[in-house]
Amino acid sequence: MYFLDPKDMPTHWYNIQADLPEPLPPLLHPATKEPTRLPPPLFAEALNEQEFSTERWIEIPEEVQAVYRTWRPTVLHRAYRLEKALDTPAKIFFKYEGTSQAGSHKPNTAVAQAYYVKKEGAKRITTETGAGQWGSALSMAGAMFGIEIKVYMVKVSYNQKPYRRILMETWGAKVVPSPSEDTEIGRKILKEDPDCPGSLGIAISEALEDAFARDDTKYSIGSVVNHVLLHQTIVGEETRKQMEMADAYPDIIVGNIGGGSNFAGQFLPWIRDKISGAKPDLRIICVEPMAAPSLTKGPYAYDFGDVAGLAPILKMYTLGHTFIPSPIHAGGLRYHGMAPIICHLYKLGLVEARAEHQVATFEAGVKFARTEGIITAPEPCHNVKVAIDEALRCREAGEAKIILIAHSGHGHFDLAAYDEYLSGRLEDYEYPEEKVKEALTHLPEVPD
Amino acid sequence: MYFLDPKDMPTHWYNIQADLPEPLPPLLHPATKEPTRLPPPLFAEALNEQEFSTERWIEIPEEVQAVYRTWRPTVLHRAYRLEKALDTPAKIFFKYEGTSQAGSHKPNTAVAQAYYVKKEGAKRITTETGAGQWGSALSMAGAMFGIEIKVYMVKVSYNQKPYRRILMETWGAKVVPSPSEDTEIGRKILKEDPDCPGSLGIAISEALEDAFARDDTKYSIGSVVNHVLLHQTIVGEETRKQMEMADAYPDIIVGNIGGGSNFAGQFLPWIRDKISGAKPDLRIICVEPMAAPSLTKGPYAYDFGDVAGLAPILKMYTLGHTFIPSPIHAGGLRYHGMAPIICHLYKLGLVEARAEHQVATFEAGVKFARTEGIITAPEPCHNVKVAIDEALRCREAGEAKIILIAHSGHGHFDLAAYDEYLSGRLEDYEYPEEKVKEALTHLPEVPD
Repeated sequence: MYFLDPKDMPTHWYNIQADLPEPLPPLLHPATKEPTRLPPPLFAEALNEQEFSTERWIEIPEEVQAVYRTWRPTVLHRAYRLEKALDTPAKIFFKYEGTSQAGSHKPNTAVAQAYYVKKEGAKRITTETGAGQWGSALSMAGAMFGIEIKVYMVKVSYNQKPYRRILMETWGAKVVPSPSEDTEIGRKILKEDPDCPGSLGIAISEALEDAFARDDTKYSIGSVVNHVLLHQTIVGEETRKQMEMADAYPDIIVGNIGGGSNFAGQFLPWIRDKISGAKPDLRIICVEPMAAPSLTKGPYAYDFGDVAGLAPILKMYTLGHTFIPSPIHAGGLRYHGMAPIICHLYKLGLVEARAEHQVATFEAGVKFARTEGIITAPEPCHNVKVAIDEALRCREAGEAKIILIAHSGHGHFDLAAYDEYLSGRLEDYEYPEEKVKEALTHLPEVPD
Repeated sequence: MYFLDPKDMPTHWYNIQADLPEPLPPLLHPATKEPTRLPPPLFAEALNEQEFSTERWIEIPEEVQAVYRTWRPTVLHRAYRLEKALDTPAKIFFKYEGTSQAGSHKPNTAVAQAYYVKKEGAKRITTETGAGQWGSALSMAGAMFGIEIKVYMVKVSYNQKPYRRILMETWGAKVVPSPSEDTEIGRKILKEDPDCPGSLGIAISEALEDAFARDDTKYSIGSVVNHVLLHQTIVGEETRKQMEMADAYPDIIVGNIGGGSNFAGQFLPWIRDKISGAKPDLRIICVEPMAAPSLTKGPYAYDFGDVAGLAPILKMYTLGHTFIPSPIHAGGLRYHGMAPIICHLYKLGLVEARAEHQVATFEAGVKFARTEGIITAPEPCHNVKVAIDEALRCREAGEAKIILIAHSGHGHFDLAAYDEYLSGRLEDYEYPEEKVKEALTHLPEVPD
């Protein structure tokens, strides 16, 4: 365990846009297809500035640092017991974000967003949530800054996963099943189909409509966009200091990618060494689920960030914004696209990508639980799987490589998935080639 | 946040028996009523020695320390945000055990017990569990030392709380609903009543029978007895170092008591300063639930530690071993008796006790969640309640007292209880005076 003294917690987020070999492609407006900012009525001005800033270091406001210090710095662990079980000469480290009160890395940006929104005078934030990981983090952040949180939770999850809903309510958020009676689009859908189970697309549309309709309200998003990845760099910046304490520099960094914010938060602070040429051999492995493998299978194209086509158009590896992935347990990895920053770095050949099937990832998760004790959420089980593969490769090659895992959180609310795995009921989903082909026919047309 | 460097983690448990003003009353054999040790076929010899040792410091084996270091030292927090919300001059600290992989303080002893049992050559450990907190901790410890764990889980909990069961299975334990077909007593009960919902008393009897029947098997208990409290002192010893880092010494220490191991683990390392006369004004407040208030309402008498009357007879404040408390959510506080060490210290006037109703404790838990973020388990909600009361008293008196909370863990598996509270469905249970009176007629007769 490598603790970082709270007084040594990084005071700045790292902005990769200062060091990119080529700038990011612009966002496009969903209607005009012209380069655009994030819609100003929806986002605090400070967040919109961060989205496009090219300043290398952005100061973390004192008030945000104070809240971070209720759980940060998080611990860097050396997985001695896993290494021993694998009989590998590799050294495996993992930076663990599961000790945040919400159980994941998500509060790193939720707290920052709630702070800026409050500072600029709004009183409410709306958002959508699927399984509830992001909604929980934002609810906690709302409680911290005295700002009202309204969460549109996909109805099927609202009914099936009451614990995440209760978590949000314990922090004081208002949670409604989506589609709801609270918005025009919700009412319209319910009129046509009172039993509609909802979808993330519908929930986003409701949250956006709600935020557009009220002057005192902003909208918040938990992944994909640049300012979210920026806030997550606190993770990697801490890890750099802690790896120095361990007198180690990673050869391989592995992390799962869904929207991309967890892994980018860890690897962006390291990739600058690769861009600068100081560490040309550093390997960064993005792990995605076989059920939604945007980097490994999708084209690099402009596509809508949301299912309904209301959000800006992003240049990314995508499976098509109308693509609905199979219901794997790693709900956070079911996004059709990928953070534009990660896509850009992948295009430039600076990161690798790999897709994994879920059964193998839970097998890795159980091995991790029985050696390190921690019950890993389904998403980071993907990282553990790949880290084990790499460690076993080291055993064969007799190489003492240093492997760093971006471990985004615990699986205390995902035990039903472990039960399926342990009882042999868990199944894999093949890559849905035909569905993706169809979805890709709906990409928006954009000017050259 | 006060981190303790892993290299500064205490290397010894503190044994209060070295410093008691009077020795503890002896254990009595359940049949002969003569002074006795713990039944040797059931307990590792090292644990039986620790049970009666009067050595002040007992070394923590290197192998146990190595496992402790997968989550320890745990963090000491200053609850700045709660202080501010209460507008109190008091300084509130809390030592948080919820970051252990099992989510509570229980692994501190589970890991030690698994180590000694393994070292002395046994291959299996049996235990009972109600809601599953203790069973989880022992299951994790079993995985760490490669020892088979068999958990008899009260059938009604087994069916109603599948997540705790899955947690145990993920760590590799074998979990059966009790009464089970695996023991004679289980089969007998099932024959008479196939739908028997089980009870902790039955589960203990099954775990004992199983351990007695096999040479390769020991039995393990998660609270009450001296060696368990001893292992928990790692918590208080760490806290002493961390409070020193904070340049603070507590005026008041609060903790919940069920079997007593959580709070004793925190306060025993401090109470020696009170016994020695160095800190005569130190206040130690034990908080129990109104539904099972053994210290505040029970007589100090010899009683069976278990419901079935198979375990040794202990001198303790008790509500009678046949007393079945109301189903409060703080399942860990439903024990009819209390750790003999705590009872002895209470008798000597060295600790205070207070009983609380559950609705008020959840109110405090929600306030804590909305200020510090952490979702507190129902048991430590009792401490938070009393800490808030004391902090408000400080506000009235204008006193900047230092309050230390023994926070035993998170409530991620207790959200149904928060839901009941938030929706106004949670109710209090009055102290069941008549039931206790009846149960106290069943105390065993012992020689003077």
